Amino acid sequence: MRVIELHKSVTASNDADAQALREKLSAEGKLLINIMSAAGSGKTTLLMRIITDLKEKVRIGVIEADIDATVDAERIEALGAKSIQAHTDGMCHMDAGMTANALAELRREEAEKTSAGLSERRYEDTDLFFLENVGNLICPAEFDTGAHLNVMLLSVPEGDDKPLKYPLMFRASDALVITKTDALPYFDFDTEKCRKRALALNPKIRIFPVSAKTGEGMDALEAWILSAIPAAERE
Amino acid sequence: MRVIELHKSVTASNDADAQALREKLSAEGKLLINIMSAAGSGKTTLLMRIITDLKEKVRIGVIEADIDATVDAERIEALGAKSIQAHTDGMCHMDAGMTANALAELRREEAEKTSAGLSERRYEDTDLFFLENVGNLICPAEFDTGAHLNVMLLSVPEGDDKPLKYPLMFRASDALVITKTDALPYFDFDTEKCRKRALALNPKIRIFPVSAKTGEGMDALEAWILSAIPAAERE
Repeated sequence: MRVIELHKSVTASNDADAQALREKLSAEGKLLINIMSAAGSGKTTLLMRIITDLKEKVRIGVIEADIDATVDAERIEALGAKSIQAHTDGMCHMDAGMTANALAELRREEAEKTSAGLSERRYEDTDLFFLENVGNLICPAEFDTGAHLNVMLLSVPEGDDKPLKYPLMFRASDALVITKTDALPYFDFDTEKCRKRALALNPKIRIFPVSAKTGEGMDALEAWILSAIPAAERE
Repeated sequence: MRVIELHKSVTASNDADAQALREKLSAEGKLLINIMSAAGSGKTTLLMRIITDLKEKVRIGVIEADIDATVDAERIEALGAKSIQAHTDGMCHMDAGMTANALAELRREEAEKTSAGLSERRYEDTDLFFLENVGNLICPAEFDTGAHLNVMLLSVPEGDDKPLKYPLMFRASDALVITKTDALPYFDFDTEKCRKRALALNPKIRIFPVSAKTGEGMDALEAWILSAIPAAERE
């Protein structure tokens, strides 16, 4: 696992950078999914579950973006997935340039390890990348990272009123994963109300209620993810 | 309840504005507490509990800062406390100029209502103001709002690793309120570990584990808040 320090992209044309990165990844047969949520909604735990469930089917790489710390990348590496910890230099979001830099660094590190005989994994073989964005329900929604899909998490303990308060995140996301559904008995969270509020902001949003702890609902989410990977590249 | 649209302060000297606001409030015998946390940590629910418990002892005003929505200010007003909903124009934090504007607007509205015979409440009589900052564990920590005390919330479901990942917020806060302690049996949250991590970042931080739902731990937090209000102004 490597830690890199990222700084704000010099280029002002984030949207163009994002589109270029997306097209490059598509041409390579790779899918990049941007995972966003508030701090503590369970992004890392969800990713760990997905990796455990899917690692025999697809080769997964993870960019862990954080202001500081390496705890998340360490948890991911322990599962055998490739990961890189990106530090955002205090910034509250990732942009396309930062994402491209993190992917390039991941590629360079894997090439070094392979040529040194330390690994047989190659960046070229990875099918699916996750970007775990900085824990923040506001700023990350404003920046296109170059991902093919934006997935937001809202955990049951956070409350079903969040679509009312953070509308941009719901509008910017292709899917809403309602996490920690095992905690539903202990919180006043109305899943149906949340669903309606999310759909009012974004009629196309896919909604997946899951518990990464018990596995409930993971099948549907994982099937949706797998179906988005360019088929030609998969074994 | 009034909704105002706030825009980024024109002045670059936020620190000076913050200091000026703090001194003005102190001279008026008022205490301003800035409440910060991620989205969904329970800021509004905690405030509602504090208002219910303390409204016979002190006169409370609340600034609800949100990107959008008025749900929080409506919940607060229902308890009989004075509140104003400040919209941040998409911004992820409050600064001192925005806070001063919100307080001025609150004052103006109360004066109008009093002179129209609709209310006997006066801004001048308020002892304690809360600023419920935008739900975000990152950006608000970077801006001095002019508050006398910064209080951050971390809810049990968010996890005890948050000090490792959002160190600035812990460093910028005078108190850490660990919320939703009634959910401790259902989550892997180690209060002692969290306490040690917070104190390692900020040895002076006061730590209050509470459940706004059951009332557990509220006494200590409320006693600490009351002790910070300039005594001369209290009845």
